[in-house]
Amino acid sequence: MREYLKLIMLFSFFSIFSQNDEQMIKKIFDSSLSNSKSYELLDYLSNEIGGRLSGSLNAKRAVEWGRDELKNIGFDKVWLQEVMVPKWVRGPKEFALIETQPGTTFNVDVCALGGSVATPSVGIKANVIEVHDFEELKELGKDKIDGKIIFFNRPMQPNLINTFQAYGEAVNQRTSGAAEAVKYGAIGVIIRSMSLRLDDYPHTGTMNYGSLPPSKRIPAAAISTNAAEKLSNLLKINPNLKFLLRQQCKQFKDVMSHNVIAEIKGSVYPDEIILVGGHLDSWDIGDGSHDDGAGIVQSMDVVNILKNIGYKPKRTIRVVLFMNEENGTRGAKKYFKVSKRNNLNHIFALESDAGGFTPRGFSFTSNAENFSVIKNWKYLFDPYLIQSFVIGGSGADISLLKTNNNVLAGLRPDSQRYFDYHHAASDTFDAINKRELELGTFSMTSLIYLFDKYGINN
Amino acid sequence: MREYLKLIMLFSFFSIFSQNDEQMIKKIFDSSLSNSKSYELLDYLSNEIGGRLSGSLNAKRAVEWGRDELKNIGFDKVWLQEVMVPKWVRGPKEFALIETQPGTTFNVDVCALGGSVATPSVGIKANVIEVHDFEELKELGKDKIDGKIIFFNRPMQPNLINTFQAYGEAVNQRTSGAAEAVKYGAIGVIIRSMSLRLDDYPHTGTMNYGSLPPSKRIPAAAISTNAAEKLSNLLKINPNLKFLLRQQCKQFKDVMSHNVIAEIKGSVYPDEIILVGGHLDSWDIGDGSHDDGAGIVQSMDVVNILKNIGYKPKRTIRVVLFMNEENGTRGAKKYFKVSKRNNLNHIFALESDAGGFTPRGFSFTSNAENFSVIKNWKYLFDPYLIQSFVIGGSGADISLLKTNNNVLAGLRPDSQRYFDYHHAASDTFDAINKRELELGTFSMTSLIYLFDKYGINN
Repeated sequence: MREYLKLIMLFSFFSIFSQNDEQMIKKIFDSSLSNSKSYELLDYLSNEIGGRLSGSLNAKRAVEWGRDELKNIGFDKVWLQEVMVPKWVRGPKEFALIETQPGTTFNVDVCALGGSVATPSVGIKANVIEVHDFEELKELGKDKIDGKIIFFNRPMQPNLINTFQAYGEAVNQRTSGAAEAVKYGAIGVIIRSMSLRLDDYPHTGTMNYGSLPPSKRIPAAAISTNAAEKLSNLLKINPNLKFLLRQQCKQFKDVMSHNVIAEIKGSVYPDEIILVGGHLDSWDIGDGSHDDGAGIVQSMDVVNILKNIGYKPKRTIRVVLFMNEENGTRGAKKYFKVSKRNNLNHIFALESDAGGFTPRGFSFTSNAENFSVIKNWKYLFDPYLIQSFVIGGSGADISLLKTNNNVLAGLRPDSQRYFDYHHAASDTFDAINKRELELGTFSMTSLIYLFDKYGINN
Repeated sequence: MREYLKLIMLFSFFSIFSQNDEQMIKKIFDSSLSNSKSYELLDYLSNEIGGRLSGSLNAKRAVEWGRDELKNIGFDKVWLQEVMVPKWVRGPKEFALIETQPGTTFNVDVCALGGSVATPSVGIKANVIEVHDFEELKELGKDKIDGKIIFFNRPMQPNLINTFQAYGEAVNQRTSGAAEAVKYGAIGVIIRSMSLRLDDYPHTGTMNYGSLPPSKRIPAAAISTNAAEKLSNLLKINPNLKFLLRQQCKQFKDVMSHNVIAEIKGSVYPDEIILVGGHLDSWDIGDGSHDDGAGIVQSMDVVNILKNIGYKPKRTIRVVLFMNEENGTRGAKKYFKVSKRNNLNHIFALESDAGGFTPRGFSFTSNAENFSVIKNWKYLFDPYLIQSFVIGGSGADISLLKTNNNVLAGLRPDSQRYFDYHHAASDTFDAINKRELELGTFSMTSLIYLFDKYGINN
């Protein structure tokens, strides 16, 4: 009988306990969908500041904006953390054309890849060889490649439900295509844009030359998917067509920039830090609304929502707007270095850097013990159709913070549309749906609330 | 030992059996995302035909297009089923303004509700009373309402994850607002658009006057959400402002139209019919890409995908493109009537009429016995992030087909963006994402495959 009573009491305890969480998460939902700041913050960042590549004037304006808005939200402390970042400048709009015979030309949409060298001011003009991977380069060899432009045309695979996987399987053409092609004497590379859509937007993104000395570097540009199809078709008709590429991008010396950090001290465990963030820099050709303006404003909004519903965190919550994720992750490295020096204890870090789309779940980097606790929270998200809690990666800016015991996570929005916009001029505020953005804010705030309340086993 | 062997055999049987389903569904996925017809069909329907309100020339063109394209896909039989439909015509673009004082006016975006009467050719001009529900009308009474325009301004609730629920809770203003307001002497009604977004698009939709004789009917128009906010704010400053509305819509006599039906005979159980469909008509102010062009092309594509992968249905699969869902569901009623007369046995019917967005699951109208079998298929959809199998409604065009034993279902795409476009000029092809549309086709084809293979308990 006593055992029975104990059971009843235990049951009642859990019942009250879980009802509280359900109620709190409903409150977070209501506040996120009714009076959040995410959409208006993003409106300003996207439309008043715009694209903000590391080292640019816009990146500086974004840092100042982030600092001021975080102060407005009412954090205990807001500060800038200095970090040296690369400064690469695109210069005038790139130009490219296909010449099928003298006098017959087709202009095509291209853009320089981030980190690429310029062409000579008149451009480069050469025959083109289409390849799909580095094996093909090897088979063709120096004889066939020397003096030519290599056209990497392996599309992202459409039949993968997770478009990030399709990206991962195609992106080495962009990151390393130039470094590989130059081994066989190529004088430039054209990369099919990393997008699943057929359209006219070239998608930029980072590339690197490895250990290649500056004098040996060859220009690298992305070509829109429509233009890639056209080039491929024309090459079938006339393998001797020529391609002209002109771009005037330039790498400058590193310049000073900043991570933006804001903190609200925990009332019970001030030394246990919960971090939420995204990256403040973006590519230069859109306004970076999805990549990663969405993650920035969602992260900023988390503490605003908690304030709205009157929740006082037991642990210290830090918002970090990382600088330079796109072409160097210098902000992440600097933040990690300083944290390590100061022996900071990040028990949990969450990054949103996969677009402002309907959230589908989270990916966790966690040991089994903590993950078994986390999985018990899943039912709290189920009424909001956030149904996927999986083990996996987190985010480029926070991954260095992993320890044996702490937990990292990445928000996982619906990925179907992400690569329509990623690194392209189409990544603009009008591609953002307010509700989808706010549902991300809701998901993040709810997870932060649960980690704040329950902590981790460490 | 024999029991043990039996168990092993049973296990192997189920293992092979389920592996086959997994493989088939992977094939359906690959085909849907790689060589489906959905996007190009919708491109034509939206961009070459466009909005196709019942009784219009465009609706006739859509019927002919549907018949021809279904023949191209290679059905055994394609035919048109005659149905008389209402013919309501919008006429010239509507005009409305707010006059805060003589000479000070603000134009606002409005559109007539489907089925509304016209205003006199000079319009109606009167004071406005803002209300939020029918209770408020009653409280105000005839004294305060007589001779005025009633402005229904109850917004859809943002804090509901299912936007269709928010729609359901707000839409009686649109469907019955005029019939209610006229009881107290109102001379017209203005309805806040059924949308969760603040923008300049008025959203039309059906309304009815109940048993009100034609001579007593008052004009009803939707106003954009931005203009509704403006009108509400101006009313706070000046409750005596006047509103001018002019619309020249007209109801004609019913005209002949058609459901389009295509069939592929089942190889084993030809008398068991599996139906898949959507509605071919749309409102007139957009091109009806989401409502319900998406459902139409997905339904048409199901048999195409099954052909692509070489699957021969055991049961008869029927595609039905229903006419007149938007303002009468006459097509659904006619189809039901003919089916009943011919004693047809629809074991399963599936409708897609909730937009071409990322599919999240299905809603089933089913008895417990069949649903317990259906739930066992859920794991087959899980790798594709289709995670919600619930009991609920199906679709307006198929709901009449319910019997005690058969199963109906509705595709349930992500609903967050649907009411940005629903019944508005913004419901156009550029609001369609190819992958999202194809994922819907995939989900539907997979479910049809499973019902074809296993049938139901009846």
